[in-house]
Amino acid sequence: MADGIVGPPDALVAPRFSGPATFARLPRLDEVPEAPLVVLGVPFDAGTSYRPGARFGPHAIRAGSRLLRPYNPELDLPAFELVQLADAGDVAANPFSIEAALATIEAGAGDLGAAGRRIVTLGGDHTVALPLLRALSRRTGPLALVHFDAHLDTWNTYFDAPYTHGTPFRRAFEEGLLTPDANVHVGTRGPLYARSDLDDDAAMGFDIIRARDLETLGIDGVAEHIRARVADRPVYISIDIDVLDPAFAPGTGTPEAGGLTSRELLGILDRLGDLAIEGADVVEVSPAYDHAEVTAIAAAHVAYHLLTLMASRIARATHG
Amino acid sequence: MADGIVGPPDALVAPRFSGPATFARLPRLDEVPEAPLVVLGVPFDAGTSYRPGARFGPHAIRAGSRLLRPYNPELDLPAFELVQLADAGDVAANPFSIEAALATIEAGAGDLGAAGRRIVTLGGDHTVALPLLRALSRRTGPLALVHFDAHLDTWNTYFDAPYTHGTPFRRAFEEGLLTPDANVHVGTRGPLYARSDLDDDAAMGFDIIRARDLETLGIDGVAEHIRARVADRPVYISIDIDVLDPAFAPGTGTPEAGGLTSRELLGILDRLGDLAIEGADVVEVSPAYDHAEVTAIAAAHVAYHLLTLMASRIARATHG
Amino acid sequence: MADGIVGPPDALVAPRFSGPATFARLPRLDEVPEAPLVVLGVPFDAGTSYRPGARFGPHAIRAGSRLLRPYNPELDLPAFELVQLADAGDVAANPFSIEAALATIEAGAGDLGAAGRRIVTLGGDHTVALPLLRALSRRTGPLALVHFDAHLDTWNTYFDAPYTHGTPFRRAFEEGLLTPDANVHVGTRGPLYARSDLDDDAAMGFDIIRARDLETLGIDGVAEHIRARVADRPVYISIDIDVLDPAFAPGTGTPEAGGLTSRELLGILDRLGDLAIEGADVVEVSPAYDHAEVTAIAAAHVAYHLLTLMASRIARATHG
Amino acid sequence: MADGIVGPPDALVAPRFSGPATFARLPRLDEVPEAPLVVLGVPFDAGTSYRPGARFGPHAIRAGSRLLRPYNPELDLPAFELVQLADAGDVAANPFSIEAALATIEAGAGDLGAAGRRIVTLGGDHTVALPLLRALSRRTGPLALVHFDAHLDTWNTYFDAPYTHGTPFRRAFEEGLLTPDANVHVGTRGPLYARSDLDDDAAMGFDIIRARDLETLGIDGVAEHIRARVADRPVYISIDIDVLDPAFAPGTGTPEAGGLTSRELLGILDRLGDLAIEGADVVEVSPAYDHAEVTAIAAAHVAYHLLTLMASRIARATHG
Amino acid sequence: MADGIVGPPDALVAPRFSGPATFARLPRLDEVPEAPLVVLGVPFDAGTSYRPGARFGPHAIRAGSRLLRPYNPELDLPAFELVQLADAGDVAANPFSIEAALATIEAGAGDLGAAGRRIVTLGGDHTVALPLLRALSRRTGPLALVHFDAHLDTWNTYFDAPYTHGTPFRRAFEEGLLTPDANVHVGTRGPLYARSDLDDDAAMGFDIIRARDLETLGIDGVAEHIRARVADRPVYISIDIDVLDPAFAPGTGTPEAGGLTSRELLGILDRLGDLAIEGADVVEVSPAYDHAEVTAIAAAHVAYHLLTLMASRIARATHG
Amino acid sequence: MADGIVGPPDALVAPRFSGPATFARLPRLDEVPEAPLVVLGVPFDAGTSYRPGARFGPHAIRAGSRLLRPYNPELDLPAFELVQLADAGDVAANPFSIEAALATIEAGAGDLGAAGRRIVTLGGDHTVALPLLRALSRRTGPLALVHFDAHLDTWNTYFDAPYTHGTPFRRAFEEGLLTPDANVHVGTRGPLYARSDLDDDAAMGFDIIRARDLETLGIDGVAEHIRARVADRPVYISIDIDVLDPAFAPGTGTPEAGGLTSRELLGILDRLGDLAIEGADVVEVSPAYDHAEVTAIAAAHVAYHLLTLMASRIARATHG
Repeated sequence: MADGIVGPPDALVAPRFSGPATFARLPRLDEVPEAPLVVLGVPFDAGTSYRPGARFGPHAIRAGSRLLRPYNPELDLPAFELVQLADAGDVAANPFSIEAALATIEAGAGDLGAAGRRIVTLGGDHTVALPLLRALSRRTGPLALVHFDAHLDTWNTYFDAPYTHGTPFRRAFEEGLLTPDANVHVGTRGPLYARSDLDDDAAMGFDIIRARDLETLGIDGVAEHIRARVADRPVYISIDIDVLDPAFAPGTGTPEAGGLTSRELLGILDRLGDLAIEGADVVEVSPAYDHAEVTAIAAAHVAYHLLTLMASRIARATHG
Repeated sequence: MADGIVGPPDALVAPRFSGPATFARLPRLDEVPEAPLVVLGVPFDAGTSYRPGARFGPHAIRAGSRLLRPYNPELDLPAFELVQLADAGDVAANPFSIEAALATIEAGAGDLGAAGRRIVTLGGDHTVALPLLRALSRRTGPLALVHFDAHLDTWNTYFDAPYTHGTPFRRAFEEGLLTPDANVHVGTRGPLYARSDLDDDAAMGFDIIRARDLETLGIDGVAEHIRARVADRPVYISIDIDVLDPAFAPGTGTPEAGGLTSRELLGILDRLGDLAIEGADVVEVSPAYDHAEVTAIAAAHVAYHLLTLMASRIARATHG
Repeated sequence: MADGIVGPPDALVAPRFSGPATFARLPRLDEVPEAPLVVLGVPFDAGTSYRPGARFGPHAIRAGSRLLRPYNPELDLPAFELVQLADAGDVAANPFSIEAALATIEAGAGDLGAAGRRIVTLGGDHTVALPLLRALSRRTGPLALVHFDAHLDTWNTYFDAPYTHGTPFRRAFEEGLLTPDANVHVGTRGPLYARSDLDDDAAMGFDIIRARDLETLGIDGVAEHIRARVADRPVYISIDIDVLDPAFAPGTGTPEAGGLTSRELLGILDRLGDLAIEGADVVEVSPAYDHAEVTAIAAAHVAYHLLTLMASRIARATHG
Repeated sequence: MADGIVGPPDALVAPRFSGPATFARLPRLDEVPEAPLVVLGVPFDAGTSYRPGARFGPHAIRAGSRLLRPYNPELDLPAFELVQLADAGDVAANPFSIEAALATIEAGAGDLGAAGRRIVTLGGDHTVALPLLRALSRRTGPLALVHFDAHLDTWNTYFDAPYTHGTPFRRAFEEGLLTPDANVHVGTRGPLYARSDLDDDAAMGFDIIRARDLETLGIDGVAEHIRARVADRPVYISIDIDVLDPAFAPGTGTPEAGGLTSRELLGILDRLGDLAIEGADVVEVSPAYDHAEVTAIAAAHVAYHLLTLMASRIARATHG
Repeated sequence: MADGIVGPPDALVAPRFSGPATFARLPRLDEVPEAPLVVLGVPFDAGTSYRPGARFGPHAIRAGSRLLRPYNPELDLPAFELVQLADAGDVAANPFSIEAALATIEAGAGDLGAAGRRIVTLGGDHTVALPLLRALSRRTGPLALVHFDAHLDTWNTYFDAPYTHGTPFRRAFEEGLLTPDANVHVGTRGPLYARSDLDDDAAMGFDIIRARDLETLGIDGVAEHIRARVADRPVYISIDIDVLDPAFAPGTGTPEAGGLTSRELLGILDRLGDLAIEGADVVEVSPAYDHAEVTAIAAAHVAYHLLTLMASRIARATHG
Repeated sequence: MADGIVGPPDALVAPRFSGPATFARLPRLDEVPEAPLVVLGVPFDAGTSYRPGARFGPHAIRAGSRLLRPYNPELDLPAFELVQLADAGDVAANPFSIEAALATIEAGAGDLGAAGRRIVTLGGDHTVALPLLRALSRRTGPLALVHFDAHLDTWNTYFDAPYTHGTPFRRAFEEGLLTPDANVHVGTRGPLYARSDLDDDAAMGFDIIRARDLETLGIDGVAEHIRARVADRPVYISIDIDVLDPAFAPGTGTPEAGGLTSRELLGILDRLGDLAIEGADVVEVSPAYDHAEVTAIAAAHVAYHLLTLMASRIARATHG
């Protein structure tokens, strides 16, 4: 490893089915406390409206990440050698009180990110994006949101509850955590409650690239659209794994037919290397509905690409 | 709801995992007996040649439909407000006698459709398309068939049995239920018994768009081909869920590799809004082979799009 | 059917895989509003501490109940002809607020039980037993609790939350809903937090028959112990399906090895016919973890035996 | 191998996961045409009233049988060396006509058994027992039936169909294939249609050992009861795998809670070595509902014990 | 059948879920010993680095192949009538010694191929490609390798082991079994150990078509690239089923997100009919991770297309 | 915690589905290096003769152990407070060379146990018992073996391989690691290769308690037999999870019908508290065949009881 960076155990010596249960078998944060980029688990799913179980998402994604190797050929980058990476473990969120959990998650993310450390979060349901944005935006100011999801997640309330996995980005918009004109949903599809869902969403400054737009825009077109919209603003990338078609991600809570393939999702991400990514998450992996780790492996790959992009940007900033 | 139309319970008050077990939690037909468009279950699979279990298909598709919401953004239509929709329950088909079951299904569909009511049927194996066509064509005359399937289903007999899930459209052709020159298979693939299978099929006036033609025609090209062939004839759309690749529809009886994606299938359907759709079915969902409701959810989405298209046409006819 | 009682559709005419999706295909309460004994679904699992998903329990148990037939040979009683039975549907409980859900469930059960109607509840997680006991005890006074479960469910708080699936019976005791000296746990096993868990439990007047006591007491001994303890007090029977070994009930949230067989559980229940059963529940069926409906079918059988016992008692009271 | 008997490939040389796909990797009947005892597959399930799929039962049981080894320590017998065993393959039964299938199965079993060859049949649903009894009783005269099952299978008709998996033994009784006073059901449990089901059954000369009688009689008591009832009559043993609890046999079509353990079933069988077993079957394995081959392996063990018992009797008859 | 060729049993008489357990129910090689093209099982997985279980691959692929029919419409060829096909059974490879197994496999393939007979192998893990290439190249000289796989399989050693499923093609290159300038990987994706993995691979004369190149090249472009590179050299086609995305092939040992669809893979293969295919394999099917035979059916289709291509070439060579 | 002992995180504060991925969320050995009793993972399965996958056993058992709580009521002991417990992580065993792996495991266990530290091992296949016995017996001298298993595991060779999961105890006997007259198999059942398997086994001083002996001896009788045979000798307890019936442990490699229940196994273990247990293992958990963690949870409970027994003995030795 370059520069004293500590990586995973050598898979040619310790089989990948053995050893630490951290993300990609990376060191724990207590082993490498100066790591500027970390993976954080948020095992929380009390905001789920349909199939629960994303509380087991961090465990499942970590298990699915054991197959990852250090070099990312798509981006031509040694993912684990650019900067020190670490697994920061889990936030212990209250499973019975959404409000209490939001506070704990925000505090945890705030502490972790205090010195500018970046975080890739493994959810948990999508509710967790709100406290993560709260904590992050204190440092960065309003963020442009690039949101991969089958759903808008800008609904208002559900059962009178303001904080659920269907509402984080309306709350974030109302709280001024997001830029008013640079957000974009990617992969939207499936029925809504009413046409006003779209109107409300547009009023919050969101742009929509529907799943079926992939057929016409292609991967390049989608990525170009995102880059143009976001430009050089600080960005948060939030990836609900249900942006993938249920064939590619059965292990999730509110699946909708007609989604993206994993090749499309990874292809789009790899074209976003120039964005100023300040934080990211991969959420809504519900392993009780997964099979053969298909969903968990897709999510692990997504997190790996996010880590590579973010590590590369940090390294460029550090080393010129 | 507009015009006194009764819809599903409000999902923001009654969670979608609770409440009536009807399709999309729509009212039962006995609650809204004037409904001009209904969903009908036909739990029957005695015509199956390989993996049985489609008798549980209606139950599974209804369970998978609970996630559906009222507004269809792809078609920009409030699916459940255009006309009154209802779930007409199941036909109680004899599981031990194909002939007896055919008679019961035909009678049930005939009664339901007597006053011009349209039906979207949830199968059951593909055998059920024959009695449905018999009942429907008595009112409409010969129908153009748009048939999504991995298979031709125009075989002659199997084990000397004339009525199985591999033969409904040959029987329908022989009985004069279909137009001679406007039928089309979409999604065909996989091995056949002999080249004569194709010759026989062509002699019955069928045109074939193979699954792999999607690679060259694209969604637009396929839809255009269908529209051109069918023109303004009355149409029956029959969708064997095995038109999807096994990755998208594992829960079916005779899966063939190399199929459509759910995005392709829904995209084609949404471009058929101008067709004079008189009836439709979604068949061959066999939930014992499904996982995480992937197949059932895809089938529920397909039925939802069929309902939206048909409701829109009825509403246009009614309201000018 | 005797006495104008409406039963399920004749399974020799309408296959059991077709027809209404009610419990055992019984009529809905709105069809037979005078029914003195009903099945009620409570799809709620926000009180779950480990594997969630019991919100889908009522749906799964109803699906598993389709196989049930009308005559109970173990008790030599025509289960569906003793009194009119009905399926009362689901309570629409708030998935995001435990307190709000408790209020809704209590109100729903209170309304249903107003005129002395008895309820067999299908959970949902065990939290729901508290509002059910609140509603029921208003009519009956303090109840003797016969509690089948791997766990005590008399813990105090969890994450400061007073109302979870681990605490209903401590709350019920504190609120005076239970008799102080006639309660009994059956099937307890597995690790606890501390020995004080047992001391606290004993202080609340609970007696414990451990799972492994079945080896020495046998079914007869256990039933005799329960009958002796409860005597002629009004009784509530609460059955957490995890009282069964995970081999018999994999589809549950906090499984513990070393449990009862389904033959033992049904055998004990059938010996409790003399108890004054005022209400009962079967909870903690989490179908995402089930296989081939093994858990759901066991729970359906349990509910069927509870219904038979309770219907028989009502019929005896009515007809002398 | 003794006496020129051909057994399976040596598992210490050819791994048990390789090699022939016959039962226990035994030779095919065309390789050892003189074999006096054979395994026969009857892949047929058109007589199924609930979950179908037993058509794949013979394939699944053969796959589950690969783990079997040659020496049966419970019976202290070299199972594959007593007489020549063979796998006779499958009967090709018509999946669309129960009557046609019955004729084919009867003919196939008749040809196979012509020279006194014994058959252990792998089903298939329980309908197949009728043609097997027809063929066998032509040689042996009326047989005593030892019937392991959750159900009675002496119902009359279902949907007017006389031949289904719920009726074989009423038909057999009516046709004079069974002795009038020596039949016995073992493992019965679960709800019936009416008390008259029991009366009808008793009138056909059946005795019932319920599943829960195991708790009091024990394995020895049950076996003793069977032996006393059957005495020295020619016997047919028919084992519906649903006699096992769903925990032990999830892969079946009409599961009922409260069943036998596999240890109990095998223990009873091993005590029936003195009976004059002329034929036997293991039916109702439906692998789509199985998990990890649990059901298939149990069925394979059951067939293995039946083969050992029958081979031993043939060997004793042959060699004195 | 033409020319005395023996095919599978007629599926219109013997259901496809019955009969011989050979590939596509084709005759065994001992029945048609002159067959010039055979299917061979190699149940071996001791070279697996992550999820094992490919030892059950041949059994699973054969089970998945029962649905195949005789006529291949994509290639417009009667697959089973071009030349005599046969199933040659399994090689009994030592599960505990990779070296011993390699020797056995090489010997087995050598014997089978002695008279120029071609083999399509069903693996087994990818280690088995090495002995197959050793045996084949003795007759053909160095082969051009067309290698479909998520991985390069040109690593050097793993745990000091030279022969594993990650190293066969480096060993083959070193041993001179491959042409130095005509090999190509198709479908590569996912992280590597280091950039040098790519350098080493290139130095061995490999060209890479990445999975995501499908987005730009399309099926035609990929096939054209392969044909141009290989030209008229003798070719070996090795297909690791993990070239498919995990959605299409969950049942494999080292899945990587972002793979090919089955439609793409079959489409490419069908365009390679002009290549001089001397041998082929389909490997790494691990059925314990499969669902509803999705992977096994995809692999069976792949093998079917390989057989059609190779049979057609043999027939052309034979008959002019 | 007493005496400065470090236990798992408080489950009332950090949910059990979050936090460290160690066994029961206990501290790692590097955190509490003086721990006298540890859990060790040995992810190795190259010695497996049938279904592989036990390499993932340690990961699965640790995941299944998250539900464990600190107080063991069956033994009335605070399991995690008696002595300091720790999770020692995994031995990185070579997956491609059995001999190399044996050496690594022996060295690892030897280092860990150097200062008298006791080990409870999580396998891995049963091959690993041999190096564990080699390492342990160097300190203790020959051990009495109490071996829970469906199989004898005293076979000689398999494919000429001396070290496989079917041979560890023959090798151990030959190497003098076991006492000649105090060993006992418990739970044996299922077919063997020949009667000589039993003779050889007896010649090595083994006694056998068959699975079906539970029916007559009961839990007390079995435990009494074991205690009498072992007396005060140093003991190694080796538990192949396949001692449980496949209903209780589907996730294993060589399942045999007719096994123990988890209640029986735990009941026997709890009666062995007086034995001088020097080491123990739980092996053969193969999670690819598990469902809903049923097998993993049973194995976790078994390990928990072993830890309690061993910790109690260490504490008694330490504190008088």
